[in-house]
Amino acid sequence: MTNLKIQVKKAKRASIILGSVKTDIKNKALENIAEAIKNNKDKIITENKKDVADAEKNKLGKSLVERLILNDKKLKEIIKIVESVIRLDDPVGKITEAIELDKGLELFKTTVPIGLIGAIFESRPDAVVQISSLCIKSGNAVILKPGSEAKNTSKILVNLIRNGMEKAGISKDAVQLIESREQVKEMLKLHEYIDLLVPRGSNKFVKYIKENTKIPVLGHAEGICHVYVDKNADIRKAADICYDSKCQYAAVCNAMETLLVHKSIAGRFLPVIARKYKKADVELRGNDPVVKIIKAKKASEEDWKKEYNDLVLSIKTVGNVDEAIKHINNYGSKHTDAIVTEDLKTASKFIDLVDSSSVMHNCSTRFADGFRYGKGAEVGISTMKIHSRGPVGLEGLVIYKYILKGKGHTVEKYASGKRKFIHKRLKK
Amino acid sequence: MTNLKIQVKKAKRASIILGSVKTDIKNKALENIAEAIKNNKDKIITENKKDVADAEKNKLGKSLVERLILNDKKLKEIIKIVESVIRLDDPVGKITEAIELDKGLELFKTTVPIGLIGAIFESRPDAVVQISSLCIKSGNAVILKPGSEAKNTSKILVNLIRNGMEKAGISKDAVQLIESREQVKEMLKLHEYIDLLVPRGSNKFVKYIKENTKIPVLGHAEGICHVYVDKNADIRKAADICYDSKCQYAAVCNAMETLLVHKSIAGRFLPVIARKYKKADVELRGNDPVVKIIKAKKASEEDWKKEYNDLVLSIKTVGNVDEAIKHINNYGSKHTDAIVTEDLKTASKFIDLVDSSSVMHNCSTRFADGFRYGKGAEVGISTMKIHSRGPVGLEGLVIYKYILKGKGHTVEKYASGKRKFIHKRLKK
Repeated sequence: MTNLKIQVKKAKRASIILGSVKTDIKNKALENIAEAIKNNKDKIITENKKDVADAEKNKLGKSLVERLILNDKKLKEIIKIVESVIRLDDPVGKITEAIELDKGLELFKTTVPIGLIGAIFESRPDAVVQISSLCIKSGNAVILKPGSEAKNTSKILVNLIRNGMEKAGISKDAVQLIESREQVKEMLKLHEYIDLLVPRGSNKFVKYIKENTKIPVLGHAEGICHVYVDKNADIRKAADICYDSKCQYAAVCNAMETLLVHKSIAGRFLPVIARKYKKADVELRGNDPVVKIIKAKKASEEDWKKEYNDLVLSIKTVGNVDEAIKHINNYGSKHTDAIVTEDLKTASKFIDLVDSSSVMHNCSTRFADGFRYGKGAEVGISTMKIHSRGPVGLEGLVIYKYILKGKGHTVEKYASGKRKFIHKRLKK
Repeated sequence: MTNLKIQVKKAKRASIILGSVKTDIKNKALENIAEAIKNNKDKIITENKKDVADAEKNKLGKSLVERLILNDKKLKEIIKIVESVIRLDDPVGKITEAIELDKGLELFKTTVPIGLIGAIFESRPDAVVQISSLCIKSGNAVILKPGSEAKNTSKILVNLIRNGMEKAGISKDAVQLIESREQVKEMLKLHEYIDLLVPRGSNKFVKYIKENTKIPVLGHAEGICHVYVDKNADIRKAADICYDSKCQYAAVCNAMETLLVHKSIAGRFLPVIARKYKKADVELRGNDPVVKIIKAKKASEEDWKKEYNDLVLSIKTVGNVDEAIKHINNYGSKHTDAIVTEDLKTASKFIDLVDSSSVMHNCSTRFADGFRYGKGAEVGISTMKIHSRGPVGLEGLVIYKYILKGKGHTVEKYASGKRKFIHKRLKK
């Protein structure tokens, strides 16, 4: 058996026990972890310096190195993440349905953890702690594969996490660290043990994962988000929203990639927004009507399919809201799409017919985020059509179990017609 | 473009509209369907006779032919299914969360249909109607692939269904029938359009589907269910439950395949249950201690992994509840497992630690079923760990969408600290 398989089997076994650990013990483990990070600050920073030195030696990009660096301030933020997860409601053990099937025969639908999560993510030391905390709180075991650039930092953090769990009486087997890329490949094949994969990183990477495993994947490969400015839009709101959706942070999945504008408002609106975009150095690409109104390159068919993740925007005029909806359902990635209009009927049509996990009316696409949605912490944003969609918090890491309690009840009595089901809802 | 792809694209387009069709229109479509089946009874039976004649000519098994035959009584049952789906609550458009993120910025989490379902199932004319009704009610479009033995019957039923939809103002494109096995192969590749597959049929068939598609599959390949008779079991209850779980209907997925018995009660319990099983002609296979107590073949390792779907049962003695739990989590299929005990602490441990979609205490495994659980109709029983587990009703065919309504809100105001989120729960 490979090392990975041994780790995965250990984690799977530990997940069963962790699934029924009480809230206060899980919180105690999280408190231990927060404290251990505080108490081992210097050691963590020493390990982190090794990673940073390696990264500089290997000439990694500046933004990558910056993301890697841990200092006092970042460590405080990491501790805050753990503390916020402690404050979150335990998602496990909630009775969501209770039905009396017959006298003495009671059915309960209760939330339980999914089991064993495989998390593969970028080289951010905070991600190790955030993902582990969310998994512990939701009673799931986890196999962690952080970016290899953070290997020394991840190792000491995972050690502190495992010790914190053990001190609280939770098996440290439930959190496992793997380090090599070959192990990721092997992990993708272990659908017998791993219940859900949560990959974070580039589109290309998430796509690779999705195409090479039978394990369900929670996440998104692409974020092709749209804002549609309707003919009944308030021009000022539209300009604010379009600017924020594109420029507030262009490199993220919930930033706008294509702006759709109703043809009858394009002449008034496009010059306004083009001035704002010019100041922010946004490159514009438009269809024919657009390039007649403002200075923009001619957009090609490829532009409508593209996630730039950068200060580039494609703009298209449409004849009506139906055309906008069709464009979004056709070219979008079911992530986040917005309409700007004062006409509630048009807004309602857009909300109903756009098949995306988040649909915004008169606000920025950038709001699609676990923290902003009030979830405390998030696992990621999902564009799956089942289980969990949009920003995913703790609720995305649980499923349910049916528990049926009887007094010797057999089906034959009901099949033969001797007894009938009553199906009466009980108070939860 | 192949015929199938044209059908699938039509269905996908229709699914978007169907997703926001109001309850009364969906119910009207279902009423039209029930009426059309009533009014076209003779025509349906004529078509069905062709299928039955072909089946007899092709020397199909007796039980297969029986399942295929439609008569007045069966047609009445089919109409009853449609009527029961009309009475079910519409699962779409329910607001499950409502949060005020800030003044004027309101987030709603609302249930929506999944989109386009691919249903592949056995040669039962009633399945065509049941699956279509559930999909229509939950606002999903569906591609139907019934067993080819029912082709004439399925064709007329699907025609009536599509006409009933059209008369109610719903596009008939939302229900599509496909007939050839080659098209099933092609369908498995259309993960870009099909959101969920619901296969029904043999273990081998469901396994084949799961292994050959990237579309999520709702269903179960295996049903290896257990009953554990604890040392503190009431012997009479245990005997009733073990008999019912095995013999009430042995050919189904929620029937018991392995009986686990605490070694200290085996001497008293096994002779009682063996007498009952003998009368029902159940073949018994046991581990060493079992064959010393009752007449049974020696069980091999393979027996613990086997779904007999027949009057065969493997029996194993265990030293305690932990051993029983370990056996079930190791050899079971996460379907349905039961404990018989009067000791609530032991029952609670078993319920917590057995990782199955349904866990029973002092009642038969055969209760794990959508109708018995009070769901009215069921799509199937799922052993997935995400989305939907156990007997799946209408609720398994919906997911949710986030709708955020603002008044021109931008993220920059919050990122810069000018405004803070309030995250106040609103009344739904």
